[in-house]
Parts: sequence; C-alpha cells; structure tokens
Amino acid sequence: MRDKRYKEALLSTINKAEEGNRISRWFDVFIMTLIVLNVVAVIIETVEGIYLKYQFYFDVFEYFSVIIFTIEYFMRLWACTAKEKYAHPVWGRIRYIFSIEALIDLMAILPFYLPLFFDMDMRVIRLLRLFRLLRIFKLGRYSIAFIMIVKVIERRKEELMITLTLVLVLMILSSSLMYYIEHEVQPEAFTSIPATMWWSVATLTTVGYGDVYPVTPLGKVLAAFIAILGIGIFALPAGILAAGFESEISKREKNRSKNKRKE
Amino acid sequence: MRDKRYKEALLSTINKAEEGNRISRWFDVFIMTLIVLNVVAVIIETVEGIYLKYQFYFDVFEYFSVIIFTIEYFMRLWACTAKEKYAHPVWGRIRYIFSIEALIDLMAILPFYLPLFFDMDMRVIRLLRLFRLLRIFKLGRYSIAFIMIVKVIERRKEELMITLTLVLVLMILSSSLMYYIEHEVQPEAFTSIPATMWWSVATLTTVGYGDVYPVTPLGKVLAAFIAILGIGIFALPAGILAAGFESEISKREKNRSKNKRKE
Amino acid sequence: MRDKRYKEALLSTINKAEEGNRISRWFDVFIMTLIVLNVVAVIIETVEGIYLKYQFYFDVFEYFSVIIFTIEYFMRLWACTAKEKYAHPVWGRIRYIFSIEALIDLMAILPFYLPLFFDMDMRVIRLLRLFRLLRIFKLGRYSIAFIMIVKVIERRKEELMITLTLVLVLMILSSSLMYYIEHEVQPEAFTSIPATMWWSVATLTTVGYGDVYPVTPLGKVLAAFIAILGIGIFALPAGILAAGFESEISKREKNRSKNKRKE
Amino acid sequence: MRDKRYKEALLSTINKAEEGNRISRWFDVFIMTLIVLNVVAVIIETVEGIYLKYQFYFDVFEYFSVIIFTIEYFMRLWACTAKEKYAHPVWGRIRYIFSIEALIDLMAILPFYLPLFFDMDMRVIRLLRLFRLLRIFKLGRYSIAFIMIVKVIERRKEELMITLTLVLVLMILSSSLMYYIEHEVQPEAFTSIPATMWWSVATLTTVGYGDVYPVTPLGKVLAAFIAILGIGIFALPAGILAAGFESEISKREKNRSKNKRKE
Repeated sequence: MRDKRYKEALLSTINKAEEGNRISRWFDVFIMTLIVLNVVAVIIETVEGIYLKYQFYFDVFEYFSVIIFTIEYFMRLWACTAKEKYAHPVWGRIRYIFSIEALIDLMAILPFYLPLFFDMDMRVIRLLRLFRLLRIFKLGRYSIAFIMIVKVIERRKEELMITLTLVLVLMILSSSLMYYIEHEVQPEAFTSIPATMWWSVATLTTVGYGDVYPVTPLGKVLAAFIAILGIGIFALPAGILAAGFESEISKREKNRSKNKRKE
Repeated sequence: MRDKRYKEALLSTINKAEEGNRISRWFDVFIMTLIVLNVVAVIIETVEGIYLKYQFYFDVFEYFSVIIFTIEYFMRLWACTAKEKYAHPVWGRIRYIFSIEALIDLMAILPFYLPLFFDMDMRVIRLLRLFRLLRIFKLGRYSIAFIMIVKVIERRKEELMITLTLVLVLMILSSSLMYYIEHEVQPEAFTSIPATMWWSVATLTTVGYGDVYPVTPLGKVLAAFIAILGIGIFALPAGILAAGFESEISKREKNRSKNKRKE
Repeated sequence: MRDKRYKEALLSTINKAEEGNRISRWFDVFIMTLIVLNVVAVIIETVEGIYLKYQFYFDVFEYFSVIIFTIEYFMRLWACTAKEKYAHPVWGRIRYIFSIEALIDLMAILPFYLPLFFDMDMRVIRLLRLFRLLRIFKLGRYSIAFIMIVKVIERRKEELMITLTLVLVLMILSSSLMYYIEHEVQPEAFTSIPATMWWSVATLTTVGYGDVYPVTPLGKVLAAFIAILGIGIFALPAGILAAGFESEISKREKNRSKNKRKE
Repeated sequence: MRDKRYKEALLSTINKAEEGNRISRWFDVFIMTLIVLNVVAVIIETVEGIYLKYQFYFDVFEYFSVIIFTIEYFMRLWACTAKEKYAHPVWGRIRYIFSIEALIDLMAILPFYLPLFFDMDMRVIRLLRLFRLLRIFKLGRYSIAFIMIVKVIERRKEELMITLTLVLVLMILSSSLMYYIEHEVQPEAFTSIPATMWWSVATLTTVGYGDVYPVTPLGKVLAAFIAILGIGIFALPAGILAAGFESEISKREKNRSKNKRKE
C-alpha cells in the first residue's frame, strides 16, 4: 500500500505538473530543457567543424542525457503499476512497455545502447544518430502543439484520406499525360511516370523548383491547364490540417477566456 | 421472366455491393484490386529496365486483366436490359453502349484489341498504351472521390466558366503587355504572346519555375504589379473546385453522423 | 421626333440585346465574335512566321474590323443624343466622346488612323499595334466578367488601398534589410534597394523564380522569417479581389435561382 | 499655468490633427511628406550612380530633415510634461525619453549625430545609414496601417506563438530527415541540418527558388509527402496575421458606415 503511494507521488512529479506542485514543475522544466538542448545538439552537430572541435562536450552531454532519460524510463516502468491500466506487476509492465508513450521513451535511449552490445557498421550507426532526434517527441507530454497534432489527425482522418486519394489520382493522371508528351523531347527529365510525379508535385503544390518543366508547346498548355484547375485539389489535405489546427487553437482560446471569466 | 431475374442477380453482384451482399462485396474488391494493379502496372512499366526485365509478367497480367474486363463488359451488356432504361433487347443495348459508363469500360479494353485487327505504327500503339490508364476511371463505380469530382464540376459549372474567363482575360492582357516590354531584350524567352502566356501562368499560379522571367526594370515592375493583384484571380477556379469538394466531404460526414445517431 | 425614334431603335439594336430582340442579339454576337477574333489575331500575329506568311489575310481582317468599328463608333455618336444625358446636339456629343465607353471605342480605332495622318517611327507604330488589344475592353458592354471587375474594384477600393500600403511598407523594410545584408556578397543581384524589391516580390508572392535569392546565412535566416510572416500580408490585396469576385458570383447565382422560382 | 497651455497647444499641433484644426493638419501633412521623402531618398540613394551624381542634393535634404526632426524631438520633449503621465519636469521627461514613441524619434536622428562625436569605421557608418530607414516608423503616429500592425500582433500573440512552434517543429523534423537522406549525394547543398532548413523553408512556403532540391528518389518522395501535408502548417502564422488585418479592416469599414448613418 505504501509502495503504491510512493509510485503515485513519483508519477505526479515526473508527469506534467498540476498547478501548485512546485517540484513537479521544476522537474518538467528540467526535462523539457534537456530535450530541447538535445534537439539543438543533434542539429548543430551536423555543422561541419563544430562537432570535431567540441566533440568532448557533445559526448559528455550525450552521456548525461542518456543517463537521465534512462533513469526516467526505469522510474516510469517501476511506477506504472500504480495506474489501474498497468496494475499487474509483470503483464502490466509489459503492456506499458508497448504503449506509444513508453516506446517513444525507449526510442530516445535505445540508439545509444545498441552499438555497445551489437557489432554495427557505420551506416547503421549514422542512422541511429538520427534516431536521437526522436527525443523531440518526448516533448509530447508537455507541449500543447504536439497534443494538437495527434488530435487534429485523429479527427480529420477521413477527410484526409479522401483528399489524399484525390491528390493521388490527380497526380497519376497529370504525370502520365505529361510523361507521354514530354518523354521524347526530355528523356532525362521525364524518364518515367514515377519520375514525372516529381514534376507534378512541384507544380501542383506551386513550389516550382524549376529543375523539371515542360518545354513542348503541348506540354506547356497541359501544365497550364493542370495548374489552374489542380492547385486547389493539392491544397486540400494541407488546408484540412491547417483548418483543424485553427479550430483547436480557437477552442483553447475560448476555454481560457471562459475560465478567466469564472475566476 | 426468369431471364430477367438472372440479369438482376448478375447486376447486383457486379455493381457496388449493398450491405450484406457478401459475394458482391468480394467481386467489388477483386475488380477494384485489379484496376489498381493495372494502374500501378502502367506506371511502373515506364521505368527504364523494369519492363524489359519483367516483360513476361507484365504481359501475362495484361492478358489476364483484359480477359476479365472483357467478360465484365459483355456480362454488363447482356444484363443491361434488366434496367427499364435499356429494356429493348437491341436499341436498349445500343443506347447502353453509348452511355458514359459503358464507354469507359470499352476504352479500358479496346486499346488491346485494336492493334490485333488493324495495322498501326509505333506512335499510335504507344498512345494506345496510355489509354490503358483510363481503366482508373472504372473505379468511378466504387470510389466516393470519383463520384464527387463529377458532382462538384456539375454544380460549379457556371462559377468555373466565369472565373476561367477572368483567368483568360488576365492572361491575355498580362502576357501581351509583358511581350511588348520584354520581347526586344529576351527574344528567345518571350518569342510571342502565346509563348509569354507560359510566363504568365507560371507567375500567376505562383509556381515560378524560373525558366522565364522579366529582366528589364519596367518588366519587373509590371510583373510585381500583376503578381500582387492577379494571383487571387488565378486562384479562383482552383479555389471553387476545392470549396466544392470540401462542402461535399462535410455533407457526407454530416449524413454519416446522422445515420449513426439513428442507429 | 421621328429622328429620336430612329436613334432609339439604333441604340437598342447595337447595345446589349434585351430578351426577344432578335436582330439586336445577332448584332451582339457579330460584334463580340469580331472583338474576340481581333484579340486572337493580335495574339497569333506575334508568333514568328505566321504574320509573314498570312500578312495579306491579317491585313484584310484588320481593315474590315476597323471599318466596322468606325461605323459603330459614328452610329453611336450620332444616336447618343437620344439619351437625356447627352441630349444637346453639340455639347452632348462632346461629353459623350469623353465618356469611358466612347474613349474605349475610340482607342480601338484610332491606332489605325494615326499613322495615316502623322509621320511616326517604327517604335511608336509598334506601340500602337499593342493598343489594338484594348479592343478587348469593348467586350465590357456584353461580358459579365468585365462588368464585375469594375464593380469589385469600386467596392473594395478602400480595402485595396490599405492592404497595398501594407504590402509597400513590408516590401520597403524587407528589401532594405536584405540589401544591406546581401549587397556585399552578391553586388550584381542585390544592386540597390529598388532592385532588391524584385527579390522581395518574388519571395513574398511565393513565385520564387530563383533568379535572385540570399546566399549568406544571415540573409537566409531573414528571408525565412520574412517569408513565414509576410506571405499572408502580400496575399491580402489578391485575396480581397478574389473575395470580391466570389461574392459577386454568388450574388448572381442567388438572383438567378430566385428568378427561376418566380417563373 | 500659462506654460502648460502653451505646451498643450504645441502638442495638439504636432500630434495627429483632430477635425477642424487646420494648422495641425498642415503640420501633419508636412511631417508625413518629409518622412516619405526621406524613405524614398534612402531607397534611391542605393542605386549606383544616382548618389554620386546628386550627392549635394541628397546631403542638403538629409541636413534639412535632421534639423526638422531634431526640433520636433526637442519640442515634444519640452511639451511632454503637459501630459499627466510625464508630469514631473525631470523624471517625467526621462520616462518619456524611454517611451517607444520617443525612442523611434531618437533613432531617426541619432544616426546622424553619432559619427560627429565618435570615431567610427565605414561598416558602422554604413549600418547607421540603414537606421535612417527607421524614420518610416515615425509614420506610425499618422498611418492606420501601422496602428493596425501593432494591434494585430498584440491580439494574435498567442496564436502566433503556437503556430510558430508548429512551424519550427515541422522544420526541424523535415530538414533532419532530408539532411540524412540527401547529404551523401549533395554534400554541398545539404551541408548540415541548419543549412537544410533553408530548403525546408523554401519548400514549405512554396517559394521554391530552386537553388536546393532533393535529387535522390527517396528524398523526392519525402519532399512530396512533406510538401503535400506541411504547406498548410507553414501557412498558419501568415494566415493568422492576414486574418487579423482583414478583421481590423472590416471593423473600420463598419464603424465608418455606422458613423455615416448617424450623420
């Protein structure tokens, strides 16, 4: 019984702080800062010269972070049985390990330990370094923006599916046509239909890098027609996500101003 | 009389399944998978090397698909008289042959048979291969997205016409002006007004490939002015299509949540 | 008195046809076709080779058009006194000549007659040829799209002014900053602040031709910041025009469906 | 007491004119014109040749402007004690000096005086010349557009923060992935994650200069996916600013039409 109380106290400390819980608040700030610094470290490490020059500090910081994240991981694993969902000391913990939350925590530390136990070539190790960036998802516990992403995608799942189908069909039709028109004149740019899809995405999202574009008159007429009518279709999935976020944001604002009025 | 019942049973099997009709459901899934695989085959065939390497499998799959689609076509042709609209055994069938639905089905198989009966040069055969992609429209019977496209275009026909007129007029005026300004300095890029329209589309859709752009100060000032004011006009047709889809999608969602509440 | 009746009959014939007036309808179609063909002729004349090859036909068509448009101009000038506004036989006609409608009609024919009476060098004559394109505005009498343009700009005048001010200020600030940052490294691309405005328009309208872009790290950071925050500001004028058109279109649709219900 | 009346009269003259106050109106127009001409001068000075040719006139205009702005600055400093907020003759004035309004006025003249008192190298002087452009913010007292910018940013602060976080996270994730995919093939374009962020901004704002783009098939697939889903996220901050302006503009229009109806 006392054991459970310890676990609950621990969980309430390491989870997102409720108002008034000062220690928990400090712990949150500490972990969030650590995560952000980790992300910054992964990013600036890639700048030529910086890593070589400050390798020692980067490595120390990496060791330090992994130790903290490992302790956090095992504390959570130990305390998780305090929740009814994971109550069983063995099966509950196993179920917890495979929860999304715990998997993200594991992904944050595993890439560090794997090369110690297994023999790996450079390519794989390089990939594992990239995995360190997944630590950013640990912010998901604290950041509103992250929580919103999941909510928005869940709620608009179906609209996203329908609009992505439209995007796919439009992409297939436009790049097939363009391929048959331009392939003979520009065999190196419009090599195949899948390759032409790159043109089709660049055009219909209006990014227009300019690395591929039609040169035949017929190709240009087709591209103009596709662009004028198709840009709206390609804007649909991004627009649905954007609208989802906007409605979540305005919902939050309303709630907040309501709460303020209550006080 | 019994004949008609057979036809109706056949139609209800090969058409989109109503709830509960299991065989029809399996038939739908089979045909849809076949169509999707056909589209995928047409697309990846164009990748250099792949066709040469796996020509045999591609050809077998093509034969198989055409046989299925041909059987489907004639089954539909036989059974169509069960519908009142095409009731007459001869004239009804002829009228059915010229319905959009049947024409799409015919377009899906005809490109295969034509070269067997007629002598054709490579260019035409290549074009006929492209026609195989039209099989994607056979999905129209099953896919909501396809049904929506037709609905949206029909409902917004007039708005589309008006906005496309605006787009055309803006395109004519801006490219004529730009042609007269830039032609002397860049005769190879702004060769004629029709050629300058390519610049005008690339700019006003904000694609901006960067293959043509004004270089004279006057041309740049004009391009800036046209871009700042004209981009909205060019966004109208795409926007109308996008708004049409969005309203169709939200209508569907509402209907569905209403039906759920009823249950 | 009888004279006035003739004038009114003439005006009702050459103006946009009311329902039932068949001759007027045919006249409208004839003039509109002539205008559209004129615009098409101006456009395809600029295609190298075509003008040289078919010069005779282009010239005959030009003579024919100018004769028709001249007759139309003088018929209108003669008949205008039937309207109360231009009732006085001399002053009324002079006032009519300076009305926008009449000026557009004059601009459509004057470029043809001027070189006959005055000695002009090639450059001016070339410019006058461009003026033939203004005949497109003669469509303004018949086309809904044209009538809408005028309405929309009139109604949204003030919003357009405010947003264009914002665009101008943002353009000045962003190009000044960018000029001071990039000038030393790319003196040929960012030659001066006015020249840098070309970059700023291409970026903030998201056209992005790719002829000028920052290369210094500081320039890139600034460009990213300006783009993420500024694109919305640059989209305002175009958006206001687009919204204006959309509201005009939907107003028309409503009116029409109302009229239909009445019948 | 009389002193205070003088100060108030002075303030009401140099501040934005209330209706009916003619002298104040003329003063406003004079100062606004001077500011606009200053901005124009700073801009066209940077055009090669113009400054060298007309240096004398530019310098005279600069002296004249600085004298006027300096007099204005000290008049405001003298008169500010008439306002309750800055009533104390010493501390009130010091507090006024550090108000945003006064700092902008100071920034407009200080760059002129600093080089007279301190020894500075060319780079710093060049930077100070740029600071003259800050005079544009002096328009803030008179221009609606400027007043709106401040209001909009203040009101949408929180939405902007949330959406900018989303933009940052999306930028980090997409450029990290792209860096790991493209770095080996294009080490000079995708040198590091921060460098790859330039690609990510150019793509997700749909500017697409075309100086960097993925070339590997995997990179292209990723870029397509990121573009189709991410463009909406990047459009959020700009969209929030734009929506803020639009609502401010329409509020103004409504107030105005209300006032008109009252009259």
